[in-house]
Amino acid sequence: MDSEVLALAKNLIGRESVTPNDAGCQQLMADYLRNCGFDIESMVFHDTTNMWARRNKQGPLFCFAGHTDVVPSGKLEHWHTPPFEPTVIDGMLYGRGAADMKGSLAAMLVATKRFVAKHPEHKGSIAFLITSDEEGPFINGTVKVVETLEARNEKIDWCLVGEPSSTDKVGDIIKNGRRGSLTGSLTVHGIQGHVAYPHLAKNPIHLAAPALAELAHTRWDEGNQYFPPTSFQVANIAAGTGAPNVVPGELEVQFNFRFCTESHAHVLKVRTQEILDRHNLEYDLNWILNGEPFLTGEGKLLTATQDAILAVTGYPTDPQTSGGTSDGRFIAPTGAQVVELGPCNATIHKVNECVAVDDLDTLADIYEQLLENLLC
Amino acid sequence: MDSEVLALAKNLIGRESVTPNDAGCQQLMADYLRNCGFDIESMVFHDTTNMWARRNKQGPLFCFAGHTDVVPSGKLEHWHTPPFEPTVIDGMLYGRGAADMKGSLAAMLVATKRFVAKHPEHKGSIAFLITSDEEGPFINGTVKVVETLEARNEKIDWCLVGEPSSTDKVGDIIKNGRRGSLTGSLTVHGIQGHVAYPHLAKNPIHLAAPALAELAHTRWDEGNQYFPPTSFQVANIAAGTGAPNVVPGELEVQFNFRFCTESHAHVLKVRTQEILDRHNLEYDLNWILNGEPFLTGEGKLLTATQDAILAVTGYPTDPQTSGGTSDGRFIAPTGAQVVELGPCNATIHKVNECVAVDDLDTLADIYEQLLENLLC
Repeated sequence: MDSEVLALAKNLIGRESVTPNDAGCQQLMADYLRNCGFDIESMVFHDTTNMWARRNKQGPLFCFAGHTDVVPSGKLEHWHTPPFEPTVIDGMLYGRGAADMKGSLAAMLVATKRFVAKHPEHKGSIAFLITSDEEGPFINGTVKVVETLEARNEKIDWCLVGEPSSTDKVGDIIKNGRRGSLTGSLTVHGIQGHVAYPHLAKNPIHLAAPALAELAHTRWDEGNQYFPPTSFQVANIAAGTGAPNVVPGELEVQFNFRFCTESHAHVLKVRTQEILDRHNLEYDLNWILNGEPFLTGEGKLLTATQDAILAVTGYPTDPQTSGGTSDGRFIAPTGAQVVELGPCNATIHKVNECVAVDDLDTLADIYEQLLENLLC
Repeated sequence: MDSEVLALAKNLIGRESVTPNDAGCQQLMADYLRNCGFDIESMVFHDTTNMWARRNKQGPLFCFAGHTDVVPSGKLEHWHTPPFEPTVIDGMLYGRGAADMKGSLAAMLVATKRFVAKHPEHKGSIAFLITSDEEGPFINGTVKVVETLEARNEKIDWCLVGEPSSTDKVGDIIKNGRRGSLTGSLTVHGIQGHVAYPHLAKNPIHLAAPALAELAHTRWDEGNQYFPPTSFQVANIAAGTGAPNVVPGELEVQFNFRFCTESHAHVLKVRTQEILDRHNLEYDLNWILNGEPFLTGEGKLLTATQDAILAVTGYPTDPQTSGGTSDGRFIAPTGAQVVELGPCNATIHKVNECVAVDDLDTLADIYEQLLENLLC
């Protein structure tokens, strides 16, 4: 018979909740948490469904954060099993969202139920902050819930985000911070013309090449104890009419910074523009700040998480700040300590996404132990 | 009322004959020339439409050469008038192909009609060699027509190519030779990955930028008495999936040399590869030799052309070899004398391409005088 964690994970995976669709996942979670003594608040913003569930009023407030939405399945013919029909084969649970992050949600629910059954009079409060727009534009999801909480002065002290942080075995890696992400869209202006009359044209590729070389070689910072150095990558470049005899009039370049806490976004902008200006380029440059970096240093949450993993699994864990962004970037600026801990991430966003069934049970045990460490 | 030259030019510009599309231009020319006593041969090779029209059988054979195709319009929003709706404003005719070279075609037609009306029993023969693939890969255009003529021993003695040779006023410059053209298609190989994990990826844009900067700055030779220095231009560049968080796996670059008789094509290839190798790039590089340089020295055609310009305009002309290649490079190797004479070229291949209406009428007068000088 399926464990309760597995049964819940299957129920969630069976719902085709591609961003921003929640497909009833939060209703399932709400019913479960209401039975555990939680007050449920649904917060719908435009196309996004969010849930804020809280048990108790007093501080300190521990919060599980996560998302019910999943990325699209990709090509169906590459899946061995239908992506929205959860299937267990050889101890692995297959399905879109199995690892990112419906398995984590199931483990959170079961951990909470067990904990409050054992400790109905626990210290502080427990909350769930769940969104259906983590994989998408993240405009109407966690950002808006956090704004709502701040407006009424409701403050999260400790937050556990269920993102799949692990690599080889569950809990081997947790994230105690994330780099920031800053995207620049650059248009370098030249003058279109015939390649045979270069003196009448101005080739934006020729003008920009030394500047791009310099941007690619620049060492933006040295990183620090928690973060690798800031990284710059050109993601897209395009110029030309397609014809081999036309000097293009414009060059389009899109680049992205993943930056650590040693570099502020506005300093990266200024330094980029200085390089472009030094090469005498005529250009337009538009920036999108996708997220500021955040870091949760030594403190009660980090220690409690590491201790919980050690107690349940017997091995130590490694706090890291590498990898993609998560909604933790919206919660940390409120002053909350934020740690990410979830299952192994090797298959996330890929076809045949899967998670070990045993890992989900282990994860539930760790989450429960974390609650013990913080609220008993 | 429009002059006959202007009316014909407008009719041709109104046809959207982007390479290799002829859009009916040659049918219009054929109907016109048939009325002037020409025999018409349409030579279609794959996607390209060509026309060989000839009046008389005897030598010597004078040939007007040109093309009905045009380069793409570029960004429509930068045009003041629609590129394929010929529009006269303040004495200037606007439209794609106005200067390169539908205006010349119109002037050739009217000059021929007038000349044969005055001299129905002229010496020698007159021909038109017209293609719809001069701006493109020119595989199935003039090359194939010249091969066909050579196979049947039909030999051009004098060829006037209507390419826009002039700079400040019509006829101030003619071309008595052209640089060679060599195109390189470069693929730089990297490793695709997520921008958040740059150590797992290898960005081909970053790797190639310094090499492109060096290629753009290299001085290939100093030119000579007849030719300006060899010039290098990147025409097209592309990399990226479109997403801002993916490091592309490959970069595509297409560049073109316009080279003089001081640099051999194979030396340019070797020097390019040396630069790419010095920057440790992994790449594929394919070359297309579009044409070797050619030169038409002193002779009957050059003198007759200079005399015609002086007689019509009152000013001398300057024979040069600068600028783009033309299909003259395929005709000159047959032993023909080749000169290029057409309107001012400041706007060719640009947005808002235009030609002075008066210049087209002057050009028709010059072409007619040239026929007089050669065939009377």
